[in-house]
Amino acid sequence: MKPETSSLPLVVSVPVTAEPPSLQDNTADLDRLRSAAARALPPALTGRALCIPFQAMAGVGRRFRQADFSGHALLNVLPHQLDIVDFIEETDSITGVALDLGTTHLEATLVDLAGGAVLAHTHGPNRQMEYGADILSRIHFATVKGADQDGLQQLQAVVVQSINQLIMELAESAGVAPETIRAMSVSGNTTMVHLLLGLSPYHICREPYTPLVNSPDPFPAAEIGLQVNPLAPVWVLPSIGSYFGGDLISGILASGLDQLEETSMLIDVGTNAEVVLGSRDWLIACAGAAGPALEGGVARMGMRAGPGAIERVRLDRENWRLDIKTIDDTPAVGICGSGLIDLVAELYLAQIVDLRGKLCRDTGFGSKKRQDFVRKHLIDSGDGLVFIIVPAEDFGHGSPVVLAQVDLDAMMRSKAAMYAILTTLTSQVGVEFADLDRIYVAGAFGKHIDPVQAITLGMLPDLPLSTYKSVGNSSLHGAELVLLSEEARSRSLEIGQKITYIELNVNQEFMIRFSGSRFIPHTDPKLFPSVPVFRSDSSSR
Amino acid sequence: MKPETSSLPLVVSVPVTAEPPSLQDNTADLDRLRSAAARALPPALTGRALCIPFQAMAGVGRRFRQADFSGHALLNVLPHQLDIVDFIEETDSITGVALDLGTTHLEATLVDLAGGAVLAHTHGPNRQMEYGADILSRIHFATVKGADQDGLQQLQAVVVQSINQLIMELAESAGVAPETIRAMSVSGNTTMVHLLLGLSPYHICREPYTPLVNSPDPFPAAEIGLQVNPLAPVWVLPSIGSYFGGDLISGILASGLDQLEETSMLIDVGTNAEVVLGSRDWLIACAGAAGPALEGGVARMGMRAGPGAIERVRLDRENWRLDIKTIDDTPAVGICGSGLIDLVAELYLAQIVDLRGKLCRDTGFGSKKRQDFVRKHLIDSGDGLVFIIVPAEDFGHGSPVVLAQVDLDAMMRSKAAMYAILTTLTSQVGVEFADLDRIYVAGAFGKHIDPVQAITLGMLPDLPLSTYKSVGNSSLHGAELVLLSEEARSRSLEIGQKITYIELNVNQEFMIRFSGSRFIPHTDPKLFPSVPVFRSDSSSR
Repeated sequence: MKPETSSLPLVVSVPVTAEPPSLQDNTADLDRLRSAAARALPPALTGRALCIPFQAMAGVGRRFRQADFSGHALLNVLPHQLDIVDFIEETDSITGVALDLGTTHLEATLVDLAGGAVLAHTHGPNRQMEYGADILSRIHFATVKGADQDGLQQLQAVVVQSINQLIMELAESAGVAPETIRAMSVSGNTTMVHLLLGLSPYHICREPYTPLVNSPDPFPAAEIGLQVNPLAPVWVLPSIGSYFGGDLISGILASGLDQLEETSMLIDVGTNAEVVLGSRDWLIACAGAAGPALEGGVARMGMRAGPGAIERVRLDRENWRLDIKTIDDTPAVGICGSGLIDLVAELYLAQIVDLRGKLCRDTGFGSKKRQDFVRKHLIDSGDGLVFIIVPAEDFGHGSPVVLAQVDLDAMMRSKAAMYAILTTLTSQVGVEFADLDRIYVAGAFGKHIDPVQAITLGMLPDLPLSTYKSVGNSSLHGAELVLLSEEARSRSLEIGQKITYIELNVNQEFMIRFSGSRFIPHTDPKLFPSVPVFRSDSSSR
Repeated sequence: MKPETSSLPLVVSVPVTAEPPSLQDNTADLDRLRSAAARALPPALTGRALCIPFQAMAGVGRRFRQADFSGHALLNVLPHQLDIVDFIEETDSITGVALDLGTTHLEATLVDLAGGAVLAHTHGPNRQMEYGADILSRIHFATVKGADQDGLQQLQAVVVQSINQLIMELAESAGVAPETIRAMSVSGNTTMVHLLLGLSPYHICREPYTPLVNSPDPFPAAEIGLQVNPLAPVWVLPSIGSYFGGDLISGILASGLDQLEETSMLIDVGTNAEVVLGSRDWLIACAGAAGPALEGGVARMGMRAGPGAIERVRLDRENWRLDIKTIDDTPAVGICGSGLIDLVAELYLAQIVDLRGKLCRDTGFGSKKRQDFVRKHLIDSGDGLVFIIVPAEDFGHGSPVVLAQVDLDAMMRSKAAMYAILTTLTSQVGVEFADLDRIYVAGAFGKHIDPVQAITLGMLPDLPLSTYKSVGNSSLHGAELVLLSEEARSRSLEIGQKITYIELNVNQEFMIRFSGSRFIPHTDPKLFPSVPVFRSDSSSR
């Protein structure tokens, strides 16, 4: 599949044949190349300014001559000009790396720029984790610890190492040399982008929450030591604010929210919950801390969706058996966000968790099976009630996997924050949930979550299940799109111009809605007609 | 004097005041700066793309904030975009360095970019001299000696050192810090530019004489280690061919030849003689090796115009006394081009040099004084006749300053080449010398030469003296112009497009004209009505 006019990759190869120099025409080699390339440009590029960056001159000149003035010019398609960065005799496929730069986790693909095919896929940890698990501790480390931006430089070095590891894996897996990787795109939250670029994130977490840059211009990979071709342009997805990063712009691109006729919504839960509402005509967004309990790291037994994480829980309320599924079906070692949502929803329906999100000291109602189940799973640890998901002796790391009230509380705050975010956002523009054509749910959250359970908890609005659509790692997918298409690059910048961003940190309405959402499913059960409501005095004391 | 619309300097300062960030507007700092700067652009720059180079982001962001979002943005005015490279609270004068990059000699000025004033002036040797006196030996050293471009790197390092020495002197002399020098322009011959940029000059001296680059794009000074501000754009005057460098484009800019209504001519004698003929409507040029004998380094006693160089010679043909003037009136140590021309013209008029350019074994005619003079000055060295300009005992370095036949032969070839170049060029377009409104003579040659004497030798056409105008170091002056004016930068590129370049190395007509010019004044004396002609049998044997 050849790229169309509207989908110019970040780097293109243009076949160029020039007359060899002669006494009649002894124009300099690079000027000869420049004018031959200008004549050979495809229609979509005709008339654009052609430059040759300083670092490229010697090599391009040498290879143009070695190729007898005939071959392929490689052009970086930059916003205001085309840069001739190389000249090759034969075009192998031109590849680029798309990177989802997460706070804890990196995911990357190697993409064929001409055809769009994904040639390799890998992921790995963001080794900045060693310097702080969350964004705030990274900002602290980068800006406070040590003099002279030492911390910032360390964090930059470590994430570049992490990325270079992935680049090496991608190159090996696809059988290409790293220096033939000609382009790179990065989609990450605002802080991660600052740390990658070596820019101070100091003001990101301080009122009025101002990043140093939202839309950095593309720059050569060598500037930050990325081990692809030194002149590969690095295209960073623009962010909109401190808490609204390029990863979500990617999500909008990937879901196509900004091009839809009908009003739709995109929900991305990572370290923050980020939500966008709108259509091709308008976009409004906000973000808030709804994620931690769902992403692992906060719940005592919480973990990232990975091998051994409980991702699905069903409670058979006739036989009172707990059915658990772990990722890769390996022994359970913890519980990830989707498992936690499942578990709490099931425990609510079993009246073991009450509408306030508290584990109920059981009053002994129900069948014998139920009473046996409760006796086995709900124990008083001396430090309050604990629900034992997997007993120590059963499997995993030899300790039980449990749900403590403190974990439940965190989970309840997250779910309340999520619903409050969604209602605050819709109310800002007078849209009802029922008006939504589609709700895209991105990320691991979207991939693993069961909307029915999230609705039971009052985390997602009570809509037909067909409204919900999982869009996978849309941060990565958006990064792939900007590698492949100038239209996507333009859209990513336009989205930033077009979007209205609501700052929840200072939103009074959000706080009121947040309080109302700290019940299962809600203080106003009419909002969740499909969820059963249990009278409080029958399920707790 | 403020720059006008048509004369935008290479770097401009734009006053920018932005609202400080607030919760209502917490746009990122650099995006805030970019949009405030876009609104503040002067009319001549309005609508141009504004970028922030990667290396500038951290510093610009920090200083923008330190300045409380109000101060002056410094913009590099590049061909296709404006780069925001710094932010300062107060504008001192913004300065740039203009450099004439000669094969043997460098000359530079520090210029106030806003007002155009020259703040300091200096010059010094091109230390590449240690690696080869002329262009060919430099090319050889750069491309043959040593493996892996070692020679090229050495030559680049040495010239950068030479330039940095001048930069330091300029900065000291004007009392500015080198890092506040924000721009640089370079005017030099094609080979010198290649060596400065670290580009192989291998094909410059090999048929069909093709440089690697004629029009390099501007690049940051740090790329080649120039010790001005690292992001100062280096603007290299474009060249037209291997033997037609940016120094001559500078000369055309400085003389304004490309804007004149009347047909005029520009002659620049450096290592080569470079000549341009034309007007605002058309330009034709050629270059040839007419210079060496006039520039020092070839004549045994030849030297550059500098202290102790004989620059003026008069022979009183009544009293037969030789009147000699040296530069700075210091004891004579050699003779420079203008002195050589003076001397040979005087000796011709004294019938001591014949029309073939040979020292005459004197037949004893003339007065006793003449005979005494000849006996004293013209001696047979055993290796042929030698004319003693300054006896050993008189002054200088203790050796005599002499003119040997071999020096005279070189001088005759140079003068013949010069006249042949001029006639070949005019004949190409059917212009007579008498049609010329003006002949601009550039460089040290133009500054020191006496047109009367050059006409006597048949080196310059026999025109009224008012036709000749010395334009000084036009290479340096053109470099100053491109620092100060976008119009000059555009003109320099347009000149390259507009000019027709005649390659003399392969021009049959040139060779014929060259032969005809190897007499004093010429084989056809009617071309030089003002010059006396002596019958050959009365002045030689």
